[in-house]
Parts: sequence; C-alpha cells; structure tokens
Amino acid sequence: MSNVPQHLRVPKGLAGVSVTDTKISTSEADGTLLYRGYAISDLAANAGFEETAFLVLNGSFPGKEELEAFTQELRKRAPVQDKVFGIMRELGKTAHPIDALRTAVSSLGSTDREETIDGKQFSLESKMSVLAANCYRVPRGERPTEPDHEQKFSDNLLHMLTKKERSDYERWVFERVLIFYMEHDMNASTFTVRVVASTLADPYAAATAGLAALKGPLHGGANEEAMKMLLEIGEPSKAAGYVERALREGKKVIGFGHRVYKDFDPRARLCKEYLKEILAKRGEDDRLYRLCDAIENEMWERKRIPPNLDYYAAPIFYLLGIEVPLYTPIFAASRTFGWMAHYNEQVEDNKLIRPDATYVGPSDLKYAPVERR
Amino acid sequence: MSNVPQHLRVPKGLAGVSVTDTKISTSEADGTLLYRGYAISDLAANAGFEETAFLVLNGSFPGKEELEAFTQELRKRAPVQDKVFGIMRELGKTAHPIDALRTAVSSLGSTDREETIDGKQFSLESKMSVLAANCYRVPRGERPTEPDHEQKFSDNLLHMLTKKERSDYERWVFERVLIFYMEHDMNASTFTVRVVASTLADPYAAATAGLAALKGPLHGGANEEAMKMLLEIGEPSKAAGYVERALREGKKVIGFGHRVYKDFDPRARLCKEYLKEILAKRGEDDRLYRLCDAIENEMWERKRIPPNLDYYAAPIFYLLGIEVPLYTPIFAASRTFGWMAHYNEQVEDNKLIRPDATYVGPSDLKYAPVERR
Repeated sequence: MSNVPQHLRVPKGLAGVSVTDTKISTSEADGTLLYRGYAISDLAANAGFEETAFLVLNGSFPGKEELEAFTQELRKRAPVQDKVFGIMRELGKTAHPIDALRTAVSSLGSTDREETIDGKQFSLESKMSVLAANCYRVPRGERPTEPDHEQKFSDNLLHMLTKKERSDYERWVFERVLIFYMEHDMNASTFTVRVVASTLADPYAAATAGLAALKGPLHGGANEEAMKMLLEIGEPSKAAGYVERALREGKKVIGFGHRVYKDFDPRARLCKEYLKEILAKRGEDDRLYRLCDAIENEMWERKRIPPNLDYYAAPIFYLLGIEVPLYTPIFAASRTFGWMAHYNEQVEDNKLIRPDATYVGPSDLKYAPVERR
Repeated sequence: MSNVPQHLRVPKGLAGVSVTDTKISTSEADGTLLYRGYAISDLAANAGFEETAFLVLNGSFPGKEELEAFTQELRKRAPVQDKVFGIMRELGKTAHPIDALRTAVSSLGSTDREETIDGKQFSLESKMSVLAANCYRVPRGERPTEPDHEQKFSDNLLHMLTKKERSDYERWVFERVLIFYMEHDMNASTFTVRVVASTLADPYAAATAGLAALKGPLHGGANEEAMKMLLEIGEPSKAAGYVERALREGKKVIGFGHRVYKDFDPRARLCKEYLKEILAKRGEDDRLYRLCDAIENEMWERKRIPPNLDYYAAPIFYLLGIEVPLYTPIFAASRTFGWMAHYNEQVEDNKLIRPDATYVGPSDLKYAPVERR
C-alpha cells in the first residue's frame, strides 16, 4: 500500500472501499454468505446457535468440551442486576426499545464487575439477550422476565420474549433466524463497533456505539417496518396495487434491496421456506405467506429487486407471537456476537481508525466584534 | 470519482483517506487550525465560547440578536431531570466518569421531550456541560451541582466543576481552552458521530457513540494521563531523566505528538503562554511551568516531537482546581458542539457510511457434528 497517495479521496459513504481484511464472514452479490468459511445454508441445515457463535468468535467450531464450557460461561453471566432494570424503568413508558437497550448496555460498563476482555464479552453477549427481551416491557413498568438457566440460548430468548411454549419446529426456526442475524461482514453498526474498538475502548462502549447506529432508520428497524407494512396491506389481493402505488409515489417498499445481494438474499430464501412450513405444520390459513409472496413477485416483476432477511424474518417473529417493537432488539442480541468477533479482530492487529476530510470551506477570514457584523 | 475501482483497498486505519468534504474546520501539518475559515489564534484572541459555537455550527458568526437567541436557547435547556442524575447515581462510586456521562447522555434519548433535531441538539449541547460537571461526583453519591442561568457557558461550567471563584483572567483562559477543545476536523469520535448520523439516528444516539469512542485510551483521556505524569515527575530537574528513561524503555511520553501537527500544535503554544501568565498574575512559584517547559525541550531535543493541546490544557485545569477525572468530560462537553456541526453536515447531504472489507478467510468448509470434530 506504500504507493497510495497521502490524501486519497474515496467514494461517498465508503461504498466499495475495503477498510480492512477480515476472516469473519463474507457476502457476495451472487447470494453467497459464509461465516468463517461455512455456507449459511450449511449452518442453517445443521448448526446450533451456541456452536455458530463460538465459530464466529473463534474461527472454528468447538469440540464437545469447548462447546460445553462456552455454553456454561454464557449461562452463568445471564442474570442482570436489578439496578440495570431500574435504569430502564426510569426511562419511562415512551422510551424507544433500542434507546432503552443502549442505555442499559452502557450502564453495564459501570455495573459489571468483569475484569478481563473475555469476561466482559461473555457478560455482554449473555445479558444482551435478557436486556433485549426486557427493553420494551420494563420501561413500560412491567416486571422483568428472567432467563432460564436450563434452556439453550435461542429457546431461552424466545421464552423471555413471548412466555409461550412453541413446537420443536418453531423453536428450531427461531434459532435459524438468530443465526442469520448474527453476522454480516461490514455494515454500519459493525463498522461503528470497529471504529470504537480501534480506540481500545472496552466491549461495553463498543456495543453501546453499535446500538447507537442501529437506532438509525437506514440501518436498524427494517424488520419492524416490514411487519407494519405487511399488516397494513393485509390481503394478498392488495399486494400488486400497494406496490404499484408505492413505486409511483416514490415510496420505499420495506424489506427489499440489499447493498450486496442483487439476485437473492440466501437468508430470506430460507426464511420464506420456514414461514410456509410453520403455517403448513400448524394447519393454518397461509394468507400471510401468500401476501409476502405476492409482494415479492410484484417487486421482482417491476424492479428486479429481491427481498432481504428483514422482510421474511418479520412474519416469522409475528407468528411466534413476538411484539413488533422487539424485532430490532432481537437482531441486536444476536448481532452482538458478530460485533464482538469484529471487536477482537480489530484489536488483535489494531490501528486507530482516524480518516481525513477534505476542507472546502473559506480561509483568511478575520474576526469582527458583534457590533460590526 | 467515477474512475475509482469497485473494491478499493485503502491504508489501515483510513490514514490519509479523505472520507468526506467538510466546511467545518481544517488542521494542517504547519500548525494551521481554522474553524470555518478563522484562525484559532484570531478566535483565541477575540472570540467568546457562545459565538464560536454558533460559528462552528452555522458557518458564520452570529449577529447581536442571533447570539442572544442562541445563548438563551442554550441556557433554557441546561436543567437536567432528577431521574438522569438518579441513573448516574445507580452506576455506583467506581463508575468511570466517561461511562457515567455516556449512560446519562444515552438516557436523554428517552427522557428529553424535544421534538425537533434543533431542539434535541440545543438540549444535548446544554445538558452535556451539566452532566460533565456531575459525572464524577454524582456516581460517588454527592449532590448534583446545578447550572446558573445568569452566567455565560464557560463561567457556568467552571463554577459547576470547582465551586470556586476565579479571576477574570483565569476565567478567560478557561474559555480559551474550551474553544480549543470544541472542534478538530476528523478524529475517531467525530468520525464515529458521522457514521451514526449517516444511519439517520438522532443526535443523542450519535453523541452517545462519540462518548464511546472517547472511552478508548487511544483517543480520550490524554489530558488526564498528562497531568498524572506531570505530578509524578514533580520537579523540573527530574524532567530530563524521566524523558531519557521513558524513551529508553519504549514508554510513551504523554501529551506529545499529533497525527497532523509536526512542528507545533497552535493550541498548545497558546496554552503554554496562558499557563505562564496565570502563575505570573498569581505571583506563585512557576515550578509547574518550568517542569512542562523542561519536558518539552527534552522531547524536542531528543525526538523533534512537539507537545499537543492535552499536554498544556492539563496544568491549566489543575491550577483552576479541577479534579483530574473531569478533564476528558470537559473535552467532551465542548466537543459536543463540533460533533453536532459534523452531524448536521453529514445529514444535510447524506449517504450511509457502509464500507467493505476484504475476506481473507477460508471457504468451502463443511459442517461436521460435534462428535466428529
């Protein structure tokens, strides 16, 4: 890189600009998504959440003892101090769940007594799911839901979110969706986490900043907006008219398009199958599936734009009985593992991320007192 | 920029990479620092904090009515709700001040009732100084210090920080130091703020992320570490030996070196004069000045590295009676105005900041059950 000029101007938004090497994951325009070299379809078919989290964090799948130790470390640290819930409660019933989650995570930086980076990360990863399950109910004055140490990560989170018993298949699907949300190479929140990690700030600070990025409608919130749109349209027969009108009015159809995937998002494809299968296994009317499918077809016919993960994760969360404001917190709970993998990769071979800007303002101006302006 | 290749690799840490145009400020290797076209020496000689903040935010100095309105908007929003202090108190007496400040700022996103971006920014800018003054004392169980609506921004902050009366000259110097900390083009926290702003997250989220970056020892904390070093060395006669030993042992001498300024940091030069003058006006022994000067000379003789702002701001804060853990919160309180200028510049012509990474990990790996690993 020694031949790079001193002041290099790059495309806006750093689009297409590679800021680092990474071994964590890669997504390609053709619909490839690999975590540490494993295809997302392979992981979806075979892997559990904990072993995938271990893989993403450490670069290879755990052996039996490693997996057991990892699972135990996560479980051990799940309980959240009452004072953290108390802080959430102080935020009041109009608090945005992501704001509440961010404030709670920020407070862990002061209230957790972990000494090591590893310990802090385990604590954060584990507590994030408890806080995600509580970031909507606790600010509204409801009692916190507590983790169950006997359950695996995904079952535990689903139970905290809904308090309902679900079939083996539905719990398996929820675990798949969590695996899909865990990691997706460089994106606005992961990049934010890496920038903060590059100052050598602690994991709580980095995750707090990641959640700050997720607050923005250009990054987080899409699964929630997608569900609201699906509920608004309601009937498969209305899909074509909705899409036609939205495109005519220049409105965004939520859940479509992706910076990387041009033909299909592999995670959305799998979620679409799961959605159909959940309804089939329940023997329920498949209206929601047909609605999703109709909008997808209309968007493809008119614009050649495929649906993304958020679009098909949303109706699955809906069928599982999860309240819509919790969809992005779930994303955050799972993505925390990806964030920490990037935190570690950044810190292991660190250089402070400190770009330049090109000054295009005036010069040689001289101060004049307010009376003479 | 259309001739830039699709996947452009850039230097690590984005060093020397211009990620955006800016009209806010520029710093140059030759010791130039301009805010909106005005030299920092001109501003230091003539300008007040409020009008400089207006300048940085809006691009030109305010007229009389504009300045009055801006000052009033800031004052009006200074009071902080008890519940925010309550959240700080919950963090407990071992809370790091920057963690406490970050958590409190994050909570403003839920507790402030501001509707507009402008209102949110005024509230944040104003409350940040109150929270900075309280982020060390309140977690330790002390009563919050409240803002005084009759005083100007810098006097008010200094009084909240120290509860002491200071001479006109010393208050004038404190205002200069705040002006110096207000803005410094692209740096890790400002870039973090811009990344978060690019998701269209609100100002509270963006500032929370900026504070997360300041937590890292490669970005924040240098003024505190510089003061600890000065207190540790203690005597001018020990300066040469300390520097010699530090360099021999490969230890960093805190407060020296800057990514931009190679010959001198213009803000450090001015602060050095102020430091000398404070001691002269007090008629006090100038040991602290001679100590700073001796280390500076030694570093220049041996390494040709000049001191930076943090190095000479620290002894000024010390003489003003400010506790060392508050030095970085003061930086944050002033820098918030710069952060918001960058927030606005980002949002006005926005594109999501979403870089790429280069995948250098394995591919074609296949899942095997845990028993067969």
